[in-house]
Order: sequence, then C-alpha cells, then structure tokens
Amino acid sequence: MKTETPLREGERLDDLMRSGLRIIQSRSAYSFGLDSVLLAHFVRAGRGDLVVELGAGNGVIAILLSTLVPAARIVGIEIQPDLACMAKRSVELNGLAGRVEIIEGDLLRADSLVGREQADVVVSNPPYMRGGSGARNPNPVMAIARHEIACTLEDVVRAASDLLKNGGGLFMVHRTERLADVIIEMRSRGLEPKRLMMVHPRPGAAPGLFLIEALKGGHPGLMGMPPLYVYDQDGGYSATMRGIYG
Amino acid sequence: MKTETPLREGERLDDLMRSGLRIIQSRSAYSFGLDSVLLAHFVRAGRGDLVVELGAGNGVIAILLSTLVPAARIVGIEIQPDLACMAKRSVELNGLAGRVEIIEGDLLRADSLVGREQADVVVSNPPYMRGGSGARNPNPVMAIARHEIACTLEDVVRAASDLLKNGGGLFMVHRTERLADVIIEMRSRGLEPKRLMMVHPRPGAAPGLFLIEALKGGHPGLMGMPPLYVYDQDGGYSATMRGIYG
Repeated sequence: MKTETPLREGERLDDLMRSGLRIIQSRSAYSFGLDSVLLAHFVRAGRGDLVVELGAGNGVIAILLSTLVPAARIVGIEIQPDLACMAKRSVELNGLAGRVEIIEGDLLRADSLVGREQADVVVSNPPYMRGGSGARNPNPVMAIARHEIACTLEDVVRAASDLLKNGGGLFMVHRTERLADVIIEMRSRGLEPKRLMMVHPRPGAAPGLFLIEALKGGHPGLMGMPPLYVYDQDGGYSATMRGIYG
Repeated sequence: MKTETPLREGERLDDLMRSGLRIIQSRSAYSFGLDSVLLAHFVRAGRGDLVVELGAGNGVIAILLSTLVPAARIVGIEIQPDLACMAKRSVELNGLAGRVEIIEGDLLRADSLVGREQADVVVSNPPYMRGGSGARNPNPVMAIARHEIACTLEDVVRAASDLLKNGGGLFMVHRTERLADVIIEMRSRGLEPKRLMMVHPRPGAAPGLFLIEALKGGHPGLMGMPPLYVYDQDGGYSATMRGIYG
C-alpha cells in the first residue's frame, strides 16, 4: 500500500518532536535545520488566516505551522520538484492534506499561484548566501536551497509584499550578516520591520541568525526581543529550546 | 581662582569613575546617561586618529574617549551654548585642552567646522525622539538634546558621511525602535553597518538601545555581537558594567 511506503531510495522518516508529526528527509538532498524550527515557532497567525511559505523545502515549516498556529490554510511554494514531492508526501503522511498544500512552482510568480494581496501571513527561510559568495554545495538541490540561485532576497521580499494584504506580516529567518540587507529590502517594499530576535548559539556568543517580523503598511518602530540562546552555558539545550522540543 | 570654581549656579561636579575624570553636570539642564558611557566604550579608534563627536552635550563622551582610545584629537561639536560652555569647562578641568576640543556650532555645518573627509571616526548619541513624537521636555536644553528639533537622524548620518574619510567609522547609540531607520540612513549615505550590539536592561528583557558601527565605503556584511546586559538577574550591575565602571 502506498501509505505504508512513502519513502523513496535514500530517504528516511524523522520525528518532528511535535504532536506526533513526522517528516520525510534525505541526507543527500535536504534535511531541515534548526533555523526552520525557530522560524515556525516565531510566526504569529490568527484563526482563519491564509499563510504562504516562500521556498518550502521539504515542507517542515508548513507542517510544523499546522500545529503552532490556528491558520485556516497553509500553502508552501517550492520550485524544486524533488523537494516539493517530498513535502507533498509528508503532508499526506501526517494527514494534513486538508490544511496544508504544497505547490510546485516559482515564488517569482507566487501572486499568480495564490492570488495578489490575499495572504495574511508570509513565511520564508530563504537561501542565505549571495549568488556568488561562499563555497557552493556540489549537490544542486542543496545549492538552490542555500544560495541565491533561483531567487534573491529581493525576489523573496517583493513576492511577500505582492502576496500580503495590507496589515499582513512577513516572518523571516536569515543570517545576521544580512540584517541590513533584509531591513532595507523590507522597507523598500512597504514591509516595515516590527519585531527582531537575535539567535545566539549560547550565552556570550555572537548571534549567527535573526528572526524578523515585518508588517505590510506598518508604521516605523521596531521592537527588539530578548535574545534566543540555543544552548545554555552547560552545553545542554536552553530552556527556550527545551520548550520548543517539548 | 578660576580653576578652583569652575561651577556655575545649579551645576555640580560628578566623578566619571574612570582615570580620575570629572564632569560638570546640571540637573536642570543636562546630565549624561548610561547610553553615553556605553557608546564611549563601544568606540574603536587608532593612534593618531581624528575623532569627531556630533552633538557633544556636556562633553562626557569626548572626555571619556580621551582615556579609552589613543586618538590624537577629539573634537566635540555642540549647538547649545550652555552645554558647549559646560563641556569646555570640563575639558579644562580635566587638563585635556591639548587633546579634546569643544566647538560650539551646528553639526549641519560640521564639514566647514572640522573639514570634509578628514575624520577617522565619528561618534554620536543623537536625539532619540522624532521631532513630533513623545512628550517634549519642557526644559528647552533637554528638549533639543532628546528630540529631533535642531537636527534629525538623517542630518547626523549625512554629517558623519561628509566628515569621514573613506574607511572611517561612525559609532552611534540609538533606541531599538529606530534600528531600521538608522540602518537605512547609514547605507543610503555610503556608511555600511558592520557591528551591532543590543543593550538589554537585564537578561530576558527586551533591548531598549543598540550600539552600531558603520564603515564608510564598507562592503555589506554585519556582525552581531553578544548582547550587553546592564544588570544581572540579581539586580546588580552585570560583569560587563562592572568592567566599564572599573
């Protein structure tokens, strides 16, 4: 039976440590990272909301969001066929087909896929590396997920702005070194940065990542959040992380 | 003798808790805050550098910098005559007349006061409140120091960009709610944000302030710093603050 063997060669089934959710991963193609988990927990969405994820990867964020926010519908757009296929199978596997939909498509055309100014919330964990920077992953699936090959930061923010209703929120995770770029792109597209959380590996360490929420049509005025530490001084998960992993 | 009575009516002499430095303050007109002390400690400058402070207030930052960085010359520009006068007397009082100079003048004309593209470092603790926002201090000296009356953020960043040599650094403290404004103004004037430190009153609390360094002509790429906590969980000064206060 198909539902008993959702895995293809090289894939494995991992526990999402949340509400019994599971996810199909592949070491050779794509495994989600901590950044995706943190972003899912950072998102705020209301009952009945339409949430769109730009660059859904293997669907981990869209699937986690199904248990974290009361949104009516969660749509993940993913350009890579292999990843979109993995994500669709994970959605099925978790019995989420009624709430979570994965669309194989290009976020540059997101408004034609899900409608212009229809979304209450947009979520994205975009490729972190500038097109030409850093050692490119020899695996093309990983390379597209991590480098600005299929889309740039500018593309993601523009797509989010096109999709969002006025007053809707964009939630994003990115590397701290890109913070200025993210803030500048956001405001230039009418998305005002409102909430910022720095993510540090441990107390006393520099933040490698940040989580940011921007409001379409929002007034200037950013709120900084307490920092998020992944590990505590003793090397174990911090209390925040233990809360996230239940 | 003049040097024995540097104080005017309503003024007092405070200990800067650093190298025996003292500062003239006035409860009714101006007392420096923690933000100035943190900014002074955040500044990096080299031997022989020209450091210019935009909006020097009573001179606290310029005077502290004389012991914190090996700069050759520190010039503070202050538009308010009463504050510039206090700052000049504090410079004299500390025997710093050879290294620290206070100029009573308008930072909008800073390049004509100290020369265009001559500074290695520019420092500013600018007015935090937008011109029309917040309850305005009834004391006009305080109002000009705290609200964007005599200058805006845009003015300060533009002046800094005019003053700095290519490769020179702007060091600024501001309220977290203005972080997006600061980053956007900086890049729009060719000053690339390079180093960011959030300042939290205590662990677990939101950051009210941030310290930022931008490099004229720098490449994009921001480094986040570990957060600075003013107090620790027990309510005493944090180790960082105990270090600052010697």
